[in-house]
This record gives sequence, structure tokens and C-alpha cells, in this order.
Amino acid sequence: MSAADPINDFETFYYNQTLDHFNFRPDSFNTFQQRYLINFKHWGGSNVSAPIFAYLGEEDAIDVDLSIIGFLNENAHQFQALQIFIEHRYYGKSVPFGSREEAFQNADTLGYFNSAQALADYAEVLIHVKKKLHAQHSPVIVIGASYGGMLASWFRLKYPHVALGALASSAPILYFDNIVPPEDGYYSIVTKDFREASETCYQTIKKSWSEIDAIASQPEGLSFLSEKFHTCRPLKKSSELKNYLDNLYCNAAQYNSPPSYPVTVVCGAIDGASHGNDTLSKIFAGVVAYRGNKSCYVNEPKNKSETDVGWRWQTCSDMVIPMAGVSNDSMFPAYQFDLKDYIKSCKAQYGVPPRPHWAATYFGGHDIKLALEWFASNIIFSNGLRDPYSSGGVLEDISDTVVAVHAKNGSHCLDILNANNITDPDWLVNQRKIEVKIIKRWIAKYYADLQAFKK
Amino acid sequence: MSAADPINDFETFYYNQTLDHFNFRPDSFNTFQQRYLINFKHWGGSNVSAPIFAYLGEEDAIDVDLSIIGFLNENAHQFQALQIFIEHRYYGKSVPFGSREEAFQNADTLGYFNSAQALADYAEVLIHVKKKLHAQHSPVIVIGASYGGMLASWFRLKYPHVALGALASSAPILYFDNIVPPEDGYYSIVTKDFREASETCYQTIKKSWSEIDAIASQPEGLSFLSEKFHTCRPLKKSSELKNYLDNLYCNAAQYNSPPSYPVTVVCGAIDGASHGNDTLSKIFAGVVAYRGNKSCYVNEPKNKSETDVGWRWQTCSDMVIPMAGVSNDSMFPAYQFDLKDYIKSCKAQYGVPPRPHWAATYFGGHDIKLALEWFASNIIFSNGLRDPYSSGGVLEDISDTVVAVHAKNGSHCLDILNANNITDPDWLVNQRKIEVKIIKRWIAKYYADLQAFKK
Repeated sequence: MSAADPINDFETFYYNQTLDHFNFRPDSFNTFQQRYLINFKHWGGSNVSAPIFAYLGEEDAIDVDLSIIGFLNENAHQFQALQIFIEHRYYGKSVPFGSREEAFQNADTLGYFNSAQALADYAEVLIHVKKKLHAQHSPVIVIGASYGGMLASWFRLKYPHVALGALASSAPILYFDNIVPPEDGYYSIVTKDFREASETCYQTIKKSWSEIDAIASQPEGLSFLSEKFHTCRPLKKSSELKNYLDNLYCNAAQYNSPPSYPVTVVCGAIDGASHGNDTLSKIFAGVVAYRGNKSCYVNEPKNKSETDVGWRWQTCSDMVIPMAGVSNDSMFPAYQFDLKDYIKSCKAQYGVPPRPHWAATYFGGHDIKLALEWFASNIIFSNGLRDPYSSGGVLEDISDTVVAVHAKNGSHCLDILNANNITDPDWLVNQRKIEVKIIKRWIAKYYADLQAFKK
Repeated sequence: MSAADPINDFETFYYNQTLDHFNFRPDSFNTFQQRYLINFKHWGGSNVSAPIFAYLGEEDAIDVDLSIIGFLNENAHQFQALQIFIEHRYYGKSVPFGSREEAFQNADTLGYFNSAQALADYAEVLIHVKKKLHAQHSPVIVIGASYGGMLASWFRLKYPHVALGALASSAPILYFDNIVPPEDGYYSIVTKDFREASETCYQTIKKSWSEIDAIASQPEGLSFLSEKFHTCRPLKKSSELKNYLDNLYCNAAQYNSPPSYPVTVVCGAIDGASHGNDTLSKIFAGVVAYRGNKSCYVNEPKNKSETDVGWRWQTCSDMVIPMAGVSNDSMFPAYQFDLKDYIKSCKAQYGVPPRPHWAATYFGGHDIKLALEWFASNIIFSNGLRDPYSSGGVLEDISDTVVAVHAKNGSHCLDILNANNITDPDWLVNQRKIEVKIIKRWIAKYYADLQAFKK
């Protein structure tokens, strides 16, 4: 962060939020304090109906977003925009029932934790803020990343009277209910990323799994693997190692951003093979290259973050995203998503099953072009095509104003993360410029309509 | 009904409906049997993606709609349309918790009874039916009347991926949250209707209230009024009489349909004054003319219908419609809508308060043209301008495809009620033709898109 840290310009507020917008049972009227932050610095004010940029929080405390999401602050000045960051219910400080422990106790308290409720929260906060600021006619542009990007696009669809437009970055809204077949999902892009970086690297990874299995099945095999991979504690099963590697490759692909491009880093080390020429030595070299020199790897002690805990519930309620399903040329071991098993495991954990079809029922997604070509307007679906989540993204224009903007070499949410004037490549600078230009067009059109409306 | 009663062509089905779509508490997973009826007779079938006309039930048993709503059946043949009538939760046979007694016990069981849940019900039923019939690409046109008309327009707005278009008849979607000022509401149109029918009738009614009050305040005044109005039991307070008259005028105006035009009937009698020339005799003549010759009037014993009971809850939860507020030239006594009082009385009755701002938060309505001109498509807001609910209706085109169709002399939901080939005036026949023509245009456009989409 620079000396003039823009975070310091944000003021913190709390909104007395209704626990359940869609139910009138006595319990539903309970409230919680929902956190939001506003930066007034660049705002042109209500008398010129200057715009409002609203960041819709996703599965994390809003402070995290504030420190990494640059798009609002980088463009606020030229738009004279108010900036507001709104925290998602059940994350950060916006937790009902007094404490996270209480809120996460069981399905009775978790039941209120879902995307439809979160969208209603955002609507209430935005209407409240506009009213407070006498800014009823200020156009609101909602911005979100990943799950928050889905929320941003859905917010424009469900609450067009509150938000004029949405910038939905890396929003896999088609990753539900088999709209996209699981085998064309996340893992297919991870594989593509590695294969494009290096065919030999891809081959090495592809064959590594069976080698790990073969060694693990031998006497002392797990000890050998533990030593080979410098594990923090002895491996109990080979799946510990395999899950770790799976996770590492996925992370490298998802956040495969300039200037370092982690997939290139991992593959460089795997292909370089300075530590040994066998497959597992190569793989380990990739681990070290990506994670850095550490005293140990693989099963480091790690506390579950609130994101881990919260998102687990969300994926076991309305956000059922089949994170599996690998095709034949995948570099990952064959693995199918079994919805029945998934439902069973969610039910075992929470006592209630997920509703895997609900997202597509409420938000749509099947034949999206056919459904929305003549309906809806003002949504940018932005994607980096190297982001594994782009497999569930909208990659084609749906209409003149519901558009897909993508960068071939982009990674997850890269377009709205903090810009780096020195290292950002031209295509990224250009992607952001295109997005700004589109939003400018929406706002200009809106002001023209507003003029006519006020007459 | 004719011999070939189209009602006989309907088959009854039940859908296992989720109690709460927006919550994942264990209770929310309870289900109830939601009734819907299908008429396959005219359907062109799924292989030609023939259309589906879906009537979205409002605050009554669906049988009632089936017998009075003619629009679907009268047009099914020329569209080769499937007809489906779906019952609203908590009405008719679509009641959760096993029985109406249980369901209406208190706010714990009533809490699930609201419009957002009803819309989600309709989405689930329609998706289910389309799937069952392999009719995924059959365009769905939703049709609704009054509150059901609001649901139809909102359904198109919230579930555009399920319904291609909506015919929203007499849907007062602007009758919330002071979008339309209460003094320009329902009573202003009732007054206008009577005044247009007869200025002297209007004057007689206008001055009658104070005469009733004056007499009621005298000793034996209530006995006198009871005798004058042939009440079924002696009046206990003058408000019994005044409410009865208020209700009668409102009904006459709301259902002021050809060929009889009840406002004309009432005013004809009031102006005709065969029974006496004093104000109250005139008013009573109006009562008799409208209600017919009966042994007694005013406080007839009457059971509360399920509509009375159900809609009372709905107006005390999300559907807070200020049915009051009269201007200076009103023929009704001055009466202001007091939101605080209203909330208090709902809370006293149900233990929970209504949420008067929620409808506008979820569905919008403020500055509707500005919000929806470039968003949304394919909604017909149809109104009869003599219908007092037209005061909360959309009476101007919002865009090319979100349009207002109205009939100057029309009454509540008249356009979609059973047609009468003999007595229906040309303007009514014409209004229906316009609506059919618009729907044909939507469907033609959709088929063209579908062709392109399938390539």
C-alpha cells in the first residue's frame, strides 16, 4: 500500500439488517449488524446524481476485499463515484446471533445464510444509503469477484431498480445443475493451463498420481513419500499428498497472474529437474518452486479460515458447484462428481441436504442467451480464460449490453484486483479500459434518460 | 357454462412443494401438496415447442379462477397452447401443515405465506411440468388477475428464464410504499366513477355520511337507521352501516362491467328516488337496486371466506396496500391511512408487524420507467380505467415490449374474465385482441430466436 492508503478514506457503518427477508415467522424479524464501508472522497454528490460504485462482498471479511480490490478506487476519481464495500452476511463482522460460534452452531442458525438473502441485504443497504445521502437518482454500479461476481450479476437481474449495472468478475454462474457438464469444468482448464505452459510438465503430473499410488501401496511406501516430499508430519494416507498437490496445481492455475505466472514457475521447476530426474523429484521441485523454501510441506498445521467454514456451508445449501469431473486428457486422476454422495455428506455434516437445483431455478442459466437476449441489460461478465472458473462463466455476449469481456491470459478476478502500473501487461490494462468504457456508456445513457424523466 | 364445459378438460395434479425456498433451517424442508390443473386439449406438443399458458393463482382457491377466467381457454386453440392453472400457497387445497386450521394458527406457521415464496412455487411447478413434458423450449406466458396480475408481472421480472412474457391484468404494482400517494388511490377512482355516472348521485352520496352521523347521534337514531335500511339485526354503531355502504360503492365501481354497469344501476336508483326524496331513502334505493330485493340488508350474517382470512394476513406481511386516503372532492368521508396504526393493528392480530417497504425493495416500482425502460421485456399491464385498482397500475408504456393496454370503460380484470359474445362491447373485444396480438408477437420473436439458438 502507498503512503496515501485509500483504505484510510473509508468510514465504517453498520446497518440493522433483517435476518430473513422472505419469511414472517417471529424469528425472521431478528436483526444483525451488517458492516459496510464508504469512501466519500471522490464523490460528486447527490445534486449531480454522481454514481455509486458498490462492491458486493463474497465469502470473506470485507477488509480483505478492501485491501485487494483496486477497481473501485482506481476509477472513482474519473467517475466522481462514491465507493461502498458491503460485507456478506455470516462473514467478517456481519454475523447474526451474536457470535460466529452461535451462528454456525447448526442448520437452525445457518439456515438464513444463502445467496438470495445476501442479495436482499445488499438491496436494503443500498436503498438505505441512497436515501440517507438523498441520492435516489445516483446510478449504482455493483461490482463483485468470483462468488461475489455471481452476486453482482444476479443483483442486476433481480434488483434492476437498485443497480443500473454490474461488473461480474470471474463469476461462474453457469456452474450449477449441469448447465456446463462437470467434465468441462474447473479441472479441464487447470489441465489446459499446464499443458499450454509445458507438454512435458503436463505429462509428468499426469503420470505422477499412479506412481504415488504404487509407492504408497508398498511397505514403508508412505515413509518414503513423507521423506521425499519433506512432509511436516508422516503421511497417514497417500490422499493427503495427492490432495495437497491437486490443490497446489489448482491454485497455481487460478491465480496464474502476471508478472510471475505461477503455472510457469511450477512447470519450470518440474521440467528443470535440478534435484533428480525421477517423476516424484520433479513434482517436489515444482512444490518448492511454488511454495518457496520451507522447513516442511504438505500437511502443515492450518486453522480453517472463516471462508473455509462459511463457504463449506454455502456449497452445502444453495451453491452446489460440482468441483470435479475430469475428462480423459486430464492431468488429474479420474474422478466423477456424485451428487447423491455429495448430498449425503452435506446432510451428515449439517443435518439438512443441499438444494442442487435451486440456483438454476432462482437465477436461471440454462440456455442463458435464449432467456436473456431480449431481457436484461448492463452486465459485464469478465473472465480470464486461464482461470479454471471461467469454465462456468459467460464467455459470449448475450446482447448489446449484457457482454462478455475476457483476457486470454487472465487469471481469477485479475481485472478488478489492485492494478500494478509497472508490471501489468498491456492486455490487462486494456481489459480494464474496456470495462470502464462500457460502464461509462451505461451511465451516460442513464443520465440522458434521467433528464427526460425529470422533465 | 356450456355443455362442453372446458373445466372438464382439466386434470388435477399435485406438486411436492418446498415450504421455504429461501431458508435452509430444518423446518424449511417441510413440504406441502400444491395443486395445479392442466388442460392438454389444444396443446401442439413439445416437438413443436407449442406455448404454455400459465395462470398464476391469487388469493383464492384455483377452482374459482378456473370457472371465471376465460382468457386461456378462449385463446388456447389458436395458440395450440397448453393451459395450466396453479394454486397459490395457503389457498384452496394448497395448504401446508396438513390443514387450514394449523396453517393459520399463528405467525410461526403463517410466516411462509408471502409473494416471494409464491413466485418461487410457480417457478418450481413450471420447471417441473416442462421437464415432465419434455417441453423445455416451450414458451411460457404467465397470466394473472389483480394480486395475481402483480405476481405475473413480477414473475416475468424475477424468473425471465421460466416465463417468456406476462399478461398482468389489473395489477396495482405501484400501490406500495407511497409510490402513488394514497389520496390518488382506490377511493379517488370510485369517486370519479360515480361522479361520471351522475353528478347528483355523487352529491347525494357525499352528503349522506354526515346525515347518517347526525341521526346516529340522536336518541333512537340507530333504531331509525336500522329501520330505514332494513338491517338484518339492529345496528350497534353507525359504522356498521357506513362500512357496508362504503363497501357497496367500492364493489360497484370495481366490478362496473357491461352489460349492467352496477354504478349506473346504483346511481339510477339514487337519482330515481321512487321511495322517497330524502337523502337516506335515495341511498337505500341504491342499495336495493344493487343487492336486489332481500328480506334484510347491511349486517347479514356472513362467514369469513378463506380469501378474507388469507388476504388479511398478506396485507399484514408483505402486501401493505394503503386502502385509504381520500382527497377533498371524494364522495367518502375524510380518512387518512396511518401506517403506524396499521402496523400496530397487524401486530396485535398476528404478533408480528408487516414490512411495508419490502415490496418496493424486492419488486421496485419507484421511478419504474427509469428503472425498467432498458431492462425487462414482454409484460402487458392491462387495466380498466374505471377499476379503482387502476390507480396503482402501470398506465403508460415503459418500453416497446413492456406496455400498458387499457380500456377507458373497463372494470377489474375484465379483459381476462370469461368473454360474452353477445353482450361484450367492441372496446372490450378490441382490448382482448390487442393483448392476443402482442403475445403472438412475443412468441413469433421467440421462435425465431429459438431457431437461431438451435443452430
